[in-house]
Amino acid sequence: MDDVVERPVMTTLAFEGSGGGGGTPALLLPSGEGNREHSFMSLRIAVLTVSDAGARGQRTDSSGDAIVAWAEARGHALVARALVPDETEEIGARLRGWADADAADLVLTTGGTGLTARDVTPEATRAILDKEAPGIAEVLRLTVYPRFHRAALSRGVAGVRGKTLVVNLPGSPGGVRDGLAVLDDLVIHAVELIRGTKTGH
Amino acid sequence: MDDVVERPVMTTLAFEGSGGGGGTPALLLPSGEGNREHSFMSLRIAVLTVSDAGARGQRTDSSGDAIVAWAEARGHALVARALVPDETEEIGARLRGWADADAADLVLTTGGTGLTARDVTPEATRAILDKEAPGIAEVLRLTVYPRFHRAALSRGVAGVRGKTLVVNLPGSPGGVRDGLAVLDDLVIHAVELIRGTKTGH
Amino acid sequence: MDDVVERPVMTTLAFEGSGGGGGTPALLLPSGEGNREHSFMSLRIAVLTVSDAGARGQRTDSSGDAIVAWAEARGHALVARALVPDETEEIGARLRGWADADAADLVLTTGGTGLTARDVTPEATRAILDKEAPGIAEVLRLTVYPRFHRAALSRGVAGVRGKTLVVNLPGSPGGVRDGLAVLDDLVIHAVELIRGTKTGH
Repeated sequence: MDDVVERPVMTTLAFEGSGGGGGTPALLLPSGEGNREHSFMSLRIAVLTVSDAGARGQRTDSSGDAIVAWAEARGHALVARALVPDETEEIGARLRGWADADAADLVLTTGGTGLTARDVTPEATRAILDKEAPGIAEVLRLTVYPRFHRAALSRGVAGVRGKTLVVNLPGSPGGVRDGLAVLDDLVIHAVELIRGTKTGH
Repeated sequence: MDDVVERPVMTTLAFEGSGGGGGTPALLLPSGEGNREHSFMSLRIAVLTVSDAGARGQRTDSSGDAIVAWAEARGHALVARALVPDETEEIGARLRGWADADAADLVLTTGGTGLTARDVTPEATRAILDKEAPGIAEVLRLTVYPRFHRAALSRGVAGVRGKTLVVNLPGSPGGVRDGLAVLDDLVIHAVELIRGTKTGH
Repeated sequence: MDDVVERPVMTTLAFEGSGGGGGTPALLLPSGEGNREHSFMSLRIAVLTVSDAGARGQRTDSSGDAIVAWAEARGHALVARALVPDETEEIGARLRGWADADAADLVLTTGGTGLTARDVTPEATRAILDKEAPGIAEVLRLTVYPRFHRAALSRGVAGVRGKTLVVNLPGSPGGVRDGLAVLDDLVIHAVELIRGTKTGH
């Protein structure tokens, strides 16, 4: 496929939310239907919380709640939500199930991206992806890193299975919010490309 | 091998072209033969355009043209050019062929780095590489990201087969130009290291 | 596991040493025991220099010396040091040996991360890791890149085997120093998470 990075319409949305030092001043940006389309497109969102403590009922899923709050604020539809322990098989089964049923455009996970032996979310996710999108994982870490260095320790991955985009977010509510600010202006365009509702050119 | 990142001579060229906020002021840079060598070294360049539409003759290869224009402007030699559909076997065969015949110092691909089922250039490239150079792919995405967030969706890879450097660029002419600006000051040094015409120390 | 990126206490240490343009002003940072803990924690450090020339006795190991000097300045304990040629088996054997004996909290390698056929440190390291931590490798390259573009050519990896963090640094003393400045505020927190002496939340 051609031209994923074609740029006929540059939206103001594309400059909100995150990182880098070199953002084009908003005054220079073309506006118009590009913005409106992005502002109003609604995605079907599924949320998977990965947490041993949560699965034992010993911890409130405030990170999952933060994703749900973001989805509602953006006008996205929450179509599924689950909580599983840090087990490769259970994580993979949920992700495969939602993607293969085409139940969601975007699956967001939270938890299990750290450095301990129990942190298996990246490996479980990679195992079910058709193709990885390393740049999404990179910007999730690297736009947060300048003000919060520990973001570099998150091992999250992102990619596509079937027509569903899957993205690993960190386990903390703060990490989730930072990640969602970065994803805000990427996921709609990504889903459009995956779904073929828009070609790159 | 030692000292890929040794730095006896810092060239001014190394600070042109791309990104980051923290460039050393040019006045502080040592100058001399390091600059001249970099300015005048000519590479043998091969260009592979990956595009279903292009292969059917339904689309002008303006991205390939942009690479050729860059090579000519830099004094590099265009030694081969081809256009293939988004097919793993055809992509891999071209890359293997050029590298194994030592036909080029640098092979640049354009197209097929996106998120759809037909986008297979990264996987086809990785399959023929002896070793990946993830930092090249990272800077191609991340130096463009601050002003064009969708650059994060490109899945391109880079690396070495034999003595040939292979780099995936995005499919659009704009994405190609952004990528070439980043590569400008990297590829000559990379080729020198691969070819052994210069050790790192 | 949960909350690798939880942030109850933000230390000033977390904003020293490296990169990014968007650091929070120090005045805004909470201080207190978080700082002291980070300042005073001592790690057990092992150093592996990978160099054909070094192994033949034809080159002083000034990069290994730079790591040792850093460890001493930080109050870390040097528990092992070795020098091996650019051979996958020898690199892997040392890393496995130290990790499986739980001899060190952190193993730093220098050398062999470049683009030539003899550069095999990343592949040898990846082969013995239980899990990769790609964000560490990313920030090692990308925080140095703006002022030294060739940092993008380093192919180093990082990750965990057992309870030992392993990080590949470049082969040159300058590259080592740049990398250690980036690692300064990451490795203590990383080791705490791996060792379970601190949970993320």
